[in-house]
Amino acid sequence: MIVTLKKEVLDPQGKVVSQTLKNMGYDNITNVRQGKHFDIELNETDKEKAKKAVEEICKKLLSNVVIEDYTINLK
Amino acid sequence: MIVTLKKEVLDPQGKVVSQTLKNMGYDNITNVRQGKHFDIELNETDKEKAKKAVEEICKKLLSNVVIEDYTINLK
Repeated sequence: MIVTLKKEVLDPQGKVVSQTLKNMGYDNITNVRQGKHFDIELNETDKEKAKKAVEEICKKLLSNVVIEDYTINLK
Repeated sequence: MIVTLKKEVLDPQGKVVSQTLKNMGYDNITNVRQGKHFDIELNETDKEKAKKAVEEICKKLLSNVVIEDYTINLK
């Protein structure tokens, strides 16, 4: 599961990384955005239920839906 | 690009998330690991070159190869 700041929200961490890379000589960097990655292991055989649980977890705990987006990848 | 702590390295942030989720009633959580996600936009048409550049960036700046692993997904 990946939580990123929405596109219209300023991402100062990403800006710093982008600027640092430019200073290091990587001139072709156009943009960097930083986010959080969570690897959640669930004891659940039903994929649909697992997805629902993770979505709930995202909304309740791991992301701030006002300024952040999240993407869930089930494995 | 995703940077995660190696499996044998303790992940206190993940542990806190895991414990909090259990306290919230999600009993089927078995493990949570937290990592960093970077979305890097490069002005480069050659995919191989782009991959090499991002790999170099990972090693030099964004990850600590002693305790962290990284995964690169080109789009």
